[in-house]
Amino acid sequence: MSSRPSSSGKSTLAEFRLIEDLRRRFGRTKHGVVRGIGDDTAIVHPSAGNDLLLTTDLVTEGVHFRLKTATLRDIGYKAAVANLSDIAAMGGSPEYILVAVAIPPRYTPRSIKQLYRGLMEACRPHGVQLIGGDTSSSAYGLFLSITVAGRVPRGRALTRAGARIGDLIYVTGTLGDSLAGLQLLDAVRGREKLSLRARSFLTSRHRRPTARIETGRILTRHGLATAAIDVSDGLSGDLSHICTQSEVGAELNAASLPLSSACRAFAAAQGASGLRLALQGGEDYELLFTVPASAQARVERLGRRADCLWTCIGVIRPQSFGLRVRDRDGILRRLPVTSYQHFQTGFKGAREVPCSP
Amino acid sequence: MSSRPSSSGKSTLAEFRLIEDLRRRFGRTKHGVVRGIGDDTAIVHPSAGNDLLLTTDLVTEGVHFRLKTATLRDIGYKAAVANLSDIAAMGGSPEYILVAVAIPPRYTPRSIKQLYRGLMEACRPHGVQLIGGDTSSSAYGLFLSITVAGRVPRGRALTRAGARIGDLIYVTGTLGDSLAGLQLLDAVRGREKLSLRARSFLTSRHRRPTARIETGRILTRHGLATAAIDVSDGLSGDLSHICTQSEVGAELNAASLPLSSACRAFAAAQGASGLRLALQGGEDYELLFTVPASAQARVERLGRRADCLWTCIGVIRPQSFGLRVRDRDGILRRLPVTSYQHFQTGFKGAREVPCSP
Repeated sequence: MSSRPSSSGKSTLAEFRLIEDLRRRFGRTKHGVVRGIGDDTAIVHPSAGNDLLLTTDLVTEGVHFRLKTATLRDIGYKAAVANLSDIAAMGGSPEYILVAVAIPPRYTPRSIKQLYRGLMEACRPHGVQLIGGDTSSSAYGLFLSITVAGRVPRGRALTRAGARIGDLIYVTGTLGDSLAGLQLLDAVRGREKLSLRARSFLTSRHRRPTARIETGRILTRHGLATAAIDVSDGLSGDLSHICTQSEVGAELNAASLPLSSACRAFAAAQGASGLRLALQGGEDYELLFTVPASAQARVERLGRRADCLWTCIGVIRPQSFGLRVRDRDGILRRLPVTSYQHFQTGFKGAREVPCSP
Repeated sequence: MSSRPSSSGKSTLAEFRLIEDLRRRFGRTKHGVVRGIGDDTAIVHPSAGNDLLLTTDLVTEGVHFRLKTATLRDIGYKAAVANLSDIAAMGGSPEYILVAVAIPPRYTPRSIKQLYRGLMEACRPHGVQLIGGDTSSSAYGLFLSITVAGRVPRGRALTRAGARIGDLIYVTGTLGDSLAGLQLLDAVRGREKLSLRARSFLTSRHRRPTARIETGRILTRHGLATAAIDVSDGLSGDLSHICTQSEVGAELNAASLPLSSACRAFAAAQGASGLRLALQGGEDYELLFTVPASAQARVERLGRRADCLWTCIGVIRPQSFGLRVRDRDGILRRLPVTSYQHFQTGFKGAREVPCSP
């Protein structure tokens, strides 16, 4: 969009008008931006004393979303959150967004504006400015690729690699809501057993997740966390990334996993496992982080003042321990490491290794 | 790729192995990079005294490339060049690349490695480091979105907005080669009339264009250019961007437009217009820039020492003048502003307003 507004596509003039319209509506910039949309690149002043964070995520029609269960505004919103959440997981502050979108002929300029509206609804509360991108026609489905740049005080970024044996494992918010919401949108049987309020909470958690930027910043400011990641693939998969990179194992406590009452009600109505939803449901965009046990009192104090729940869900163990979950009967079971699939089953790889409910 | 290696797709484990392999092969980083591929975001130290340049471009199957006329290695190479060229047009130095790719099931890990090989062939000579991205399966075609970050001395970036009446218009290299090369690859009639050498030159200019990074840096270092853009949409379209943003008009001199001997031979063999190829052919990735007339002697001196040809092709006129080209008979004609279409006709919008040969 910034770079080469009319670089491709079938209707250059229409495309150019669309870009100009998007720039006018969403591309107004303020602090730090020398040049936003409308040149070969964006130009920004990097802020002194900070490291620069850069992340790119793409979402594609038929893999990450279906227009059956999400509006374009939701898709834009969620695509932005996925990137903002990556910045949150480093303890950083998101600053700039660039949006590349390939648009099939069936989409109208109005629908593309809805996509951007969703994007900016997620960005504006954090002061994130749209500074560029690219727009093209697509011979196939809708593709959306987002880049977010952010800052973190120099040398203070949280990585996946610092967890140490004995560290406590925390997670923000509640887990499994997004997958429950998706299954509701997919009209699974038993939805009538849930209250309207519970249904609305779960579908909203799926369509409009929250990036935990404040929590990330608190952790950085107080130098508390030894490692962090955002829960996008599901707790088991994302915890395994921390364990691999930190060369440690982990023990989770099933009874401690934070489930919303709506998610519990959903699991009960479905005859499904709430634990499985919590362990394997993706796209919750909660933060998973580790802190030294000696800092627990301080962490609990800070957590009470944060804008979301912080829950201690386990402890870091030696690498030889692997990944295990202690069930409600006190029995340790090996944790199947799965990865979230955005729809259809909602899980992938989980079926071979059933997880105790 | 950095962010969430297994975020999507059908074969998570295979995908994860591919990413690990790509990281090992192409993701080694050195100076400036605190953390590359393998965390939620990349972390880099911004260099002091510089502005940060950010640009994103996407290429999609069926719109920007077809596997009939390009290998995956070529596609990767050219996608990188399109972004490097945007940094060059700001007078900057590219530093980091992030690559988001959506891969249809028919592609093998080996073919994706070829894509990255091409990308890095374009990046390595400039010291550009691969620091992140995202990898996903695609239900439709191949989709590639690239973000490049670069630096430019603070306040020195070239924009499209500074051209003034009386400034001279320069372009690097030769024009129209890429489109001629594409038409050759599309096996137009008359190709046998061209020498093997000319054919090979033109197809190579199409498949492996050069980002004019050195020229951009020279212009910044010497504070010479008042405006700049890269020729990706075709000379007429890109010049019109400078004119719009600088609120000026322009007069081009047809006789001065730099055409390679191969491009002239191609035009002759086709009975086509070399001028039209030069004005409307896209993807040459040459730099188009304006300089004050008073600096001409200095510019010519610097141009002789540059790694490519610099040619004066016209002069900036008042906005009311519009965009005109003076033909070989000295007659001024209105310049049709067109935009390049990546294949099929090679042009779009040009047919309605024929350009004098």
